[in-house]
Amino acid sequence: MKIAGQVSLEDLPRIAPLLSRATNPEYSGRQTRVVEVRGVRFGEDRPVVVAGPCAVETHEQTVGIAQAVREAGGDMLRGGAYKPRTSPHDFQGTGLEGLCILSVAREVTGLPVVTEVMDPRLVREVAKYADMLQVGSRNMQNYPLLAEVGRAHKPVLLKRGMAASLCEWLGAAEYIAKQGNLDIVLCERGIKAFPSGEYARYVLDLSVIPAVQALTFLPVIVDPSHATGVAAMVEPASRAALEFGCDGLIIEIADFRKGPPRCDAAQAIDANTLARIVRFARARAEELQEQVTVA
Amino acid sequence: MKIAGQVSLEDLPRIAPLLSRATNPEYSGRQTRVVEVRGVRFGEDRPVVVAGPCAVETHEQTVGIAQAVREAGGDMLRGGAYKPRTSPHDFQGTGLEGLCILSVAREVTGLPVVTEVMDPRLVREVAKYADMLQVGSRNMQNYPLLAEVGRAHKPVLLKRGMAASLCEWLGAAEYIAKQGNLDIVLCERGIKAFPSGEYARYVLDLSVIPAVQALTFLPVIVDPSHATGVAAMVEPASRAALEFGCDGLIIEIADFRKGPPRCDAAQAIDANTLARIVRFARARAEELQEQVTVA
Amino acid sequence: MKIAGQVSLEDLPRIAPLLSRATNPEYSGRQTRVVEVRGVRFGEDRPVVVAGPCAVETHEQTVGIAQAVREAGGDMLRGGAYKPRTSPHDFQGTGLEGLCILSVAREVTGLPVVTEVMDPRLVREVAKYADMLQVGSRNMQNYPLLAEVGRAHKPVLLKRGMAASLCEWLGAAEYIAKQGNLDIVLCERGIKAFPSGEYARYVLDLSVIPAVQALTFLPVIVDPSHATGVAAMVEPASRAALEFGCDGLIIEIADFRKGPPRCDAAQAIDANTLARIVRFARARAEELQEQVTVA
Amino acid sequence: MKIAGQVSLEDLPRIAPLLSRATNPEYSGRQTRVVEVRGVRFGEDRPVVVAGPCAVETHEQTVGIAQAVREAGGDMLRGGAYKPRTSPHDFQGTGLEGLCILSVAREVTGLPVVTEVMDPRLVREVAKYADMLQVGSRNMQNYPLLAEVGRAHKPVLLKRGMAASLCEWLGAAEYIAKQGNLDIVLCERGIKAFPSGEYARYVLDLSVIPAVQALTFLPVIVDPSHATGVAAMVEPASRAALEFGCDGLIIEIADFRKGPPRCDAAQAIDANTLARIVRFARARAEELQEQVTVA
Repeated sequence: MKIAGQVSLEDLPRIAPLLSRATNPEYSGRQTRVVEVRGVRFGEDRPVVVAGPCAVETHEQTVGIAQAVREAGGDMLRGGAYKPRTSPHDFQGTGLEGLCILSVAREVTGLPVVTEVMDPRLVREVAKYADMLQVGSRNMQNYPLLAEVGRAHKPVLLKRGMAASLCEWLGAAEYIAKQGNLDIVLCERGIKAFPSGEYARYVLDLSVIPAVQALTFLPVIVDPSHATGVAAMVEPASRAALEFGCDGLIIEIADFRKGPPRCDAAQAIDANTLARIVRFARARAEELQEQVTVA
Repeated sequence: MKIAGQVSLEDLPRIAPLLSRATNPEYSGRQTRVVEVRGVRFGEDRPVVVAGPCAVETHEQTVGIAQAVREAGGDMLRGGAYKPRTSPHDFQGTGLEGLCILSVAREVTGLPVVTEVMDPRLVREVAKYADMLQVGSRNMQNYPLLAEVGRAHKPVLLKRGMAASLCEWLGAAEYIAKQGNLDIVLCERGIKAFPSGEYARYVLDLSVIPAVQALTFLPVIVDPSHATGVAAMVEPASRAALEFGCDGLIIEIADFRKGPPRCDAAQAIDANTLARIVRFARARAEELQEQVTVA
Repeated sequence: MKIAGQVSLEDLPRIAPLLSRATNPEYSGRQTRVVEVRGVRFGEDRPVVVAGPCAVETHEQTVGIAQAVREAGGDMLRGGAYKPRTSPHDFQGTGLEGLCILSVAREVTGLPVVTEVMDPRLVREVAKYADMLQVGSRNMQNYPLLAEVGRAHKPVLLKRGMAASLCEWLGAAEYIAKQGNLDIVLCERGIKAFPSGEYARYVLDLSVIPAVQALTFLPVIVDPSHATGVAAMVEPASRAALEFGCDGLIIEIADFRKGPPRCDAAQAIDANTLARIVRFARARAEELQEQVTVA
Repeated sequence: MKIAGQVSLEDLPRIAPLLSRATNPEYSGRQTRVVEVRGVRFGEDRPVVVAGPCAVETHEQTVGIAQAVREAGGDMLRGGAYKPRTSPHDFQGTGLEGLCILSVAREVTGLPVVTEVMDPRLVREVAKYADMLQVGSRNMQNYPLLAEVGRAHKPVLLKRGMAASLCEWLGAAEYIAKQGNLDIVLCERGIKAFPSGEYARYVLDLSVIPAVQALTFLPVIVDPSHATGVAAMVEPASRAALEFGCDGLIIEIADFRKGPPRCDAAQAIDANTLARIVRFARARAEELQEQVTVA
């Protein structure tokens, strides 16, 4: 019995010809395309560490955390101004005010900023403030948004949908690429499977990293905060992701001295833990560099 | 270890207070809210059968199928003008032209029309042509779209996301309701699980129907075409869904004498099969009616 | 990158040559092999209804329920003497005593008996009492058990493992067949997927029924009790399974006047509900018979 | 609607009182029980590396690989004499002959041996040759086997079932413990989820490691070979598992100069890669040791 809608990775050259290694001879080896965000370079030997609050709540909170990120050695600031929440009655983010706060935090710290955009009508506005536009898991197959983001002349962080096959994920990235924007960084953030919710939020799927790298030239990073949903798992998940060769991490942190954050408090780590992760990422990169030099 | 972001059905009165039975005493029994679409009533004893092509391709194809739907006893016409496809290089639908064709088909047959909208900027335009707006699985958590659709003064068909818990699904519906629009019909269309793709496209999850009915007053229908992806399974899946008490079906049909359709040919049935399904739905409703009369 | 251990349904003629339609020309059409259990015939037009308690607890309980099954029109008695339980500290069944009780119940009612065997060392003993040997989901790939059961000269009921692909399931059945025993009835009983536990116990996967029927000649029945875990869903699930063309049902019932059963009380239905399911199954079979006669 | 059979980690003290930290005050901290296998100690600071062929095929192959394991720094030898295979027509292992070969390999190399037993009737026989008994994923809930293994006076390696919740896994371990044998090592080996088979064999679920460690005092190791099914992923998966704090690894290797192995060739690594993994495991342990000493 024939089944409709079946695609497999063998179809990738047809589904994502702009992004597939097979159809881009200049990327036929192991080379990764470097995606630059105001001087921060994804896809080189040194993994990029993005960190910040789940949601931008206040000026003080965000600037404080941004400074902590810089002090911990982080490369970029994350923070949600528009928050996709399961219920419309939950805190939806601070919106435009949040964007302003993020640009102040960038001013103060020098860290480039990535923030999520959910509405194609807001892409231009968000792009004025952000250095990199994030498309979240829930919107991975929101094709009008992907096209709009593709036209915004900004690098894009595309999170994997929680039930997305690799084929579907790269097909989604191709919507951005088709607008002439190849500055895309992919982000694995955990998938839904039967254990979700028993001892972790999602199931972190690290095997997708080498598969991404074999099939496309885009950099791929990992979000250990959403994947696990458990603060105590963020550091091991970060290290594990780096062992799998990811090009960076995006991590939620909080300043617990100021009280718990308004979203996802249970998955936020503190700045000290972030600093350890950054040191690990740096040491790991040097170690790999030495191996390459020796070989 | 605490896990971030955990919600369960016990949280529903907080997540979806406008749609939860528990917080709406007028729906505290088993009563379903009737959602009316130009005379077609979802949520009454008689299940609604929506049918039509996957994609609106040509005037001739769509009008021909619409007439076949009417002759088979169908209540409403479905047809995609804007098609969400895994690859941007695949046929994306006929867009505005498709909407025009749909309104001609309605003119000719008298069948109300439901069609998918993916872009919040197009909601008003699509609403001019459609009698009911469909939000597809990929956009179930596209909250700006849900809000815009909620403001369009049209009934909405909200498909379940392929990895959506019931809690998340009803939370998504609440985004529509929050705009003052309670005319929402839910649609189960198969979930992603390990067998997806082995012998069927998704896993049809019929148990969600009585759960929906226990927790909210919204009507719920089933899409057997996408759930199975196999033409030969559409009729048994339709009958099975009706046995589970669903309020209707949405089915893809094609006129194979004109050659295969451009999308999802393997899951399209012909008009004769549709007619059998409609007869079954009618007989089933009468049988239930008699049981109620006797009791 | 090559992946170890990948099999697909295209490999079935190699994996299960004794059971595959493709390698058994005498079953190349739609014909099902009839598996007879003391006069009860699985695989003919009339679906077989097996019912009984989850666990055999006492003589009175089991004989009482067996009589209720016969009065409700059921064909066979089920009842667990050896119960696989998540914890070794939970009630493990009444063992040999339970087997004796089952054979008394058969004596009293004339209903053939199916009961689970988990231990290859007990197969002969259980086969003395049971008319049909059940291999449960947890043991679907317990190959020494399958081989022993295959040698017992009794029909076998093989439940699908909760994460088993169709390929793996038929491969497991082939272990029984390889011992010279083709009297195998397959049983779908719900799979594990992300929604398991939110509103139902497992996800009932009805699409596997036509797939089984297309690929092998073995009869296939459905266990709506374990698949849903919710008493109120057992009747709709039974009807839905029959619409999908299954060859029978296996259902848990209880006599609630005597207090709740010791296992899985929430999924047990009463005898009246069973009687309605049996009537539906009979009416459905006659309806199909008439269609065949007319055509 | 109440759902039958629901258990959660909160029920663990009841499900697995012998193994739960909550019910064993002597393990109320972070301490792990040390499981010793002929001098090799699971659960101490130094992760144990078990390696060997998928299946014991010949004397030459197994002894050769065992020597390579020892030279690479491995601690223990694995090798299947009885192989659970999807089809009964596939190579089933060399059985008793394989056990003899394994004991020769132990003689030659001094490495303790772990091998799978599937049949409760063979537990004593296998225990004569093996230093540690492995219960495989397919038999995780084969309770008579677990009980028999629990009585064998040998340490046990209990692999996680491919659809097992943590609760079910620890419940299964409790069957062994109930026989008076607490010398149990748990092994995560990948779960079934929607991406299984797209780019990896299963989904490696590392988050279960800290959850195991929080809830029970048993050591837990990881099988990167089965979890990924891709040779090129075995090294990163091993490192990732060590970053998550696992107590060891069990890895399949082959000597490709002698031709491909008869099972699972695509997931076997060579001895050089194994040596790198062992060096990493040793360095990682020392690093942790230093941190503890400093702190």
